[in-house]
Amino acid sequence: MALPHATSGQLIDIRPLGSRITTSVSNALFKTPQLELMRLVLPRGKGMPEHSVPGAVTIQCLEGAIELHAHQQTQTVKAGELVYLAGGEPHALHALEDSSVLLTLLLQPH
Amino acid sequence: MALPHATSGQLIDIRPLGSRITTSVSNALFKTPQLELMRLVLPRGKGMPEHSVPGAVTIQCLEGAIELHAHQQTQTVKAGELVYLAGGEPHALHALEDSSVLLTLLLQPH
Repeated sequence: MALPHATSGQLIDIRPLGSRITTSVSNALFKTPQLELMRLVLPRGKGMPEHSVPGAVTIQCLEGAIELHAHQQTQTVKAGELVYLAGGEPHALHALEDSSVLLTLLLQPH
Repeated sequence: MALPHATSGQLIDIRPLGSRITTSVSNALFKTPQLELMRLVLPRGKGMPEHSVPGAVTIQCLEGAIELHAHQQTQTVKAGELVYLAGGEPHALHALEDSSVLLTLLLQPH
């Protein structure tokens, strides 16, 4: 997927996709050397297998509901809820409903 | 306001406050050495005068509508919209309605 460069001051729409969710795909919102934002679109039953990223991340459910497995526990994250995960923490996602999720990733300088 | 230390994996509620907005105040959601999240509660007509912060920031309107002045322009940011601002960029906020806003600040290592 394309990774457009962020423009400081640019308005980004992260409203729920609603009925458009079934025809939408995950997309990068912007990326700078420090920060990356993307919207994951996860149809019910889909997810991401366990993985980790070097930097801290926040996982915000924009619509639907997902199961987040991290720190040896599974919790449901619903629309309007957010979880912070420390860098390097393994985690997996599983959509309980058609869901979209805002991921905010802190990138680490090389 | 208290700045609780983040717990990785902790669920944070950022749903709209709705009618509770008039009795709510801004609060820190969490803070780590790299990242700070807070919810600003801005009653209609209130705001923040022009200021800047060292690190990059995202400003997400959770409910209501705010005017954001940055980069020599004023734009309206409504519920479900987000703006990224580069570190050091002067900006000011003004609430057009009773609003709450999620601020995500990248902190810079000292």
